[in-house]
Amino acid sequence: MKNLESLIKTYNDFPQKGIAFKDILGIMHDPEVFRELILKMSSNKVIKSSEAIISIEARGFIFGSAISLQTSKPMVVARKPGKLPGKLIKENYNLEYGKSTLSIQKESLEKFNSYVIIDDLLATGGTIECVANLIRKSGKKVNGSVTVVELAELHGRCRFDFPIESILSI
Amino acid sequence: MKNLESLIKTYNDFPQKGIAFKDILGIMHDPEVFRELILKMSSNKVIKSSEAIISIEARGFIFGSAISLQTSKPMVVARKPGKLPGKLIKENYNLEYGKSTLSIQKESLEKFNSYVIIDDLLATGGTIECVANLIRKSGKKVNGSVTVVELAELHGRCRFDFPIESILSI
Repeated sequence: MKNLESLIKTYNDFPQKGIAFKDILGIMHDPEVFRELILKMSSNKVIKSSEAIISIEARGFIFGSAISLQTSKPMVVARKPGKLPGKLIKENYNLEYGKSTLSIQKESLEKFNSYVIIDDLLATGGTIECVANLIRKSGKKVNGSVTVVELAELHGRCRFDFPIESILSI
Repeated sequence: MKNLESLIKTYNDFPQKGIAFKDILGIMHDPEVFRELILKMSSNKVIKSSEAIISIEARGFIFGSAISLQTSKPMVVARKPGKLPGKLIKENYNLEYGKSTLSIQKESLEKFNSYVIIDDLLATGGTIECVANLIRKSGKKVNGSVTVVELAELHGRCRFDFPIESILSI
């Protein structure tokens, strides 16, 4: 996609030393590129074949929600600790820097049978694996994952047994 | 809007005792209601008159992003501490429970001249006021705020000198 890469900025040593952070928020400053991106993501067969989208806090919400509007697929969210009310299922994960936990409302996961996991960026894949485990623990199916960007050199996609689709590999 | 209120669930004593938390995520499980909501929000004159949307982490991203897609308006984000790289402007605020800080990337605010503030819910209005202050400190214009829900009894709207629009007042 023309222009997409030019809208993604790299910040070295953020959020901590040694990490080259990819800031995808510049995409949101160009509505034409954002629309083209959402149309491209929405046409992906992994999304088409899934009953629902699951998006990961917080940047995943930006893309998940727009894809939900575009495709008329329902959206469930995976959030960080302390953010979701009600009965939750939780799992810890390792990310490129540090550790964290993600939670999903039990009631929401129960509503749909197959999911596509949406996030802004695939790095080592820890976050997406965590969400996939939560979906499977609930007896539901993971059809695959669709992200805007993939950091190819981290080989995150190799840990998964489901399709990993990204619009831009850098 | 038909059904909208029935998709919003109240959780008492979340995230702390005495708070009746309104969970709006159920809206995302019904794509038809979500679409109707986004079309209604997008047709609001405050959005139409603004050059850009500013959405507040994290639930505000869900609505801001879909409105950005629908209206072809660019979106800038206000985020919590430690989340945004680059040069930031920051401001502290009080919310219904506790205190927090919001940041915006300087570079992104400089790109557009007038903003509509998008969030899921208007309670006391502390978060929206914080974002409005950040926009004005940067010499830019706040055209108003559009939220999905307003907790009318908290009179949050009274602290603002710009239009406050909500789809549902409860």
